[in-house]
Amino acid sequence: MAGKVDSESSQDDVDRLFMRAALAEADCAEALREVPIGALVVRDGLVLGRGHNLRETTQDPTAHAEIIAIRQAAEKLNSWRLLDCTLYVTLEPCVMCMGAIILARIPYLVYACRDPRAGAAGSIYNLAQDERFNHRVFVREGVLQHQCSTQLSAFFQRLRAEKKDARQRN
Amino acid sequence: MAGKVDSESSQDDVDRLFMRAALAEADCAEALREVPIGALVVRDGLVLGRGHNLRETTQDPTAHAEIIAIRQAAEKLNSWRLLDCTLYVTLEPCVMCMGAIILARIPYLVYACRDPRAGAAGSIYNLAQDERFNHRVFVREGVLQHQCSTQLSAFFQRLRAEKKDARQRN
Repeated sequence: MAGKVDSESSQDDVDRLFMRAALAEADCAEALREVPIGALVVRDGLVLGRGHNLRETTQDPTAHAEIIAIRQAAEKLNSWRLLDCTLYVTLEPCVMCMGAIILARIPYLVYACRDPRAGAAGSIYNLAQDERFNHRVFVREGVLQHQCSTQLSAFFQRLRAEKKDARQRN
Repeated sequence: MAGKVDSESSQDDVDRLFMRAALAEADCAEALREVPIGALVVRDGLVLGRGHNLRETTQDPTAHAEIIAIRQAAEKLNSWRLLDCTLYVTLEPCVMCMGAIILARIPYLVYACRDPRAGAAGSIYNLAQDERFNHRVFVREGVLQHQCSTQLSAFFQRLRAEKKDARQRN
């Protein structure tokens, strides 16, 4: 659990600090050979929920980092309304996760790198700003972008190399 | 748990039978004073997962009927891929739930009535047919539409009457 953040820290410092913690969650996913994605729910400088992608480990199609972190934060607050919270995540959320962010009334979303194939906070959809929902999400992207995208690229590169190796052995 | 369906039943009979079971799940939600929505995941005539809206009871923003039914079915199959499954739900799924349906590779979705304010399978979005996803969902709507929409309308009417009563007492 990260400690309370010094109130004199700039917002940029705060965002980098929590994105580093989200990246540490992504490391946990990678150690399990899961696609390395990590997420945190934070309020007033305190971490209320954290999660990393566990789809393969749990065989649960909804076990994305964001969903796990959101459910943990809601349990901690004993409320489905995550008012005044920020969700930090290493990769742009998909449609399911953006839906959960909106349903949980999370006002701030910070993510590291875009997901051009499935991202729903600016890439293939921009659900954060859809005026037909009764909630809008303020989005900041690009925090620790390089570190997060490097980790993801390296993971997929390794996966492709392993598959090639396996094919050559057969 | 519903029994195996007679292979000679028409698809329409089968859909009505499972939608009635989804409606029974919605009744369970209503008994808890939750918005009455119920869902089932079915394969080869067998119910693999069932759920009803539990948002208020559990204070979990992701506790929609569909998510609960999907997670239960995945646990039963020990697989995040719900291939050859049909999801039955009494109300058109929201963005989060449609995202989960696509992630779980569910090929068939049957719902009773549209949600013009938040439905993502034809109303405000049509995620089922978005060619940018690597999965398409075949959708049938309108099965037991009247029963499901009547239940929802009656629920919200009662809620408004109760709120009016409470205001008048204060």
